Amino acid sequence: MTRSNNITLRPVGYVRSPHTEKAQIPKGPGAKHDAEGVLEVLPEFERGLQDIEGFSHLYVIWVFDRAEPGDTLVATPPTDNRPHGVFATRSPQRPNPLGLSVVELLSREGNRLRVRGVDMLDGTPVVDIKPYLSSVPEAKLRRGWLAEAEARYPRRH
Amino acid sequence: MTRSNNITLRPVGYVRSPHTEKAQIPKGPGAKHDAEGVLEVLPEFERGLQDIEGFSHLYVIWVFDRAEPGDTLVATPPTDNRPHGVFATRSPQRPNPLGLSVVELLSREGNRLRVRGVDMLDGTPVVDIKPYLSSVPEAKLRRGWLAEAEARYPRRH
Repeated sequence: MTRSNNITLRPVGYVRSPHTEKAQIPKGPGAKHDAEGVLEVLPEFERGLQDIEGFSHLYVIWVFDRAEPGDTLVATPPTDNRPHGVFATRSPQRPNPLGLSVVELLSREGNRLRVRGVDMLDGTPVVDIKPYLSSVPEAKLRRGWLAEAEARYPRRH
Repeated sequence: MTRSNNITLRPVGYVRSPHTEKAQIPKGPGAKHDAEGVLEVLPEFERGLQDIEGFSHLYVIWVFDRAEPGDTLVATPPTDNRPHGVFATRSPQRPNPLGLSVVELLSREGNRLRVRGVDMLDGTPVVDIKPYLSSVPEAKLRRGWLAEAEARYPRRH
């Protein structure tokens, strides 16, 4: 059995976002993430963007660099008033402070990707970008405590 | 502008997979990932799994701990014969060796999550697990070079 040691990640770029404070990021039931922003890839990684223009959506893996200290195993999300294990939430306080977002790629200019769906703070470090290749059909999804919480609150659409 | 330093991740668990060698992992146009396996979360992180049973699908962020050294910016994927930037591929050789998989959660027993859709090697370190909350409708997806490559090859369904 492989028991790897810790691994160290370096930023490959940074997010340019209209959100400069956490309170500006939509949260809670029905929150919409349609803010536009830019993924600024560092010049030394620009070759890694070749042919990315062909994809409509991207996964962005990023770092919660301004997460508050706190319990990293159980979180009470803004969408609910009950605690849940962090692996069943998107809480910033988690054992490894990684975020994951799906963004729509609007255009590319060199090392800058203009995207829609930014739910990160301005200046957030990006550690990886991957193409979004396929979806789980909505009819096959079960959404656990989130579906229950949404049923209890009026949706903000 | 925030310029974070490198961040260090620790495994929160390991993948138990039927794939013990890279050659066993389906690759190329139309590859199906329906292997079953287990995400073994380390006991000290088990509290983080509370309520995860309610979700049908999970994101798993993991480490390519056995990636070969090589060019981490341009890759020629098995699905194509043309090189592409790594951020437009799922190549294991990338600036930060992170993998991302969507798996279906079949059942949980304590710190063990039985899942379908395992495309990782046995013993792969897991660094994060998140709930899969919503999908981009297939009709809205553009899949760039991959769609072109699939059109050139017969699909293996």
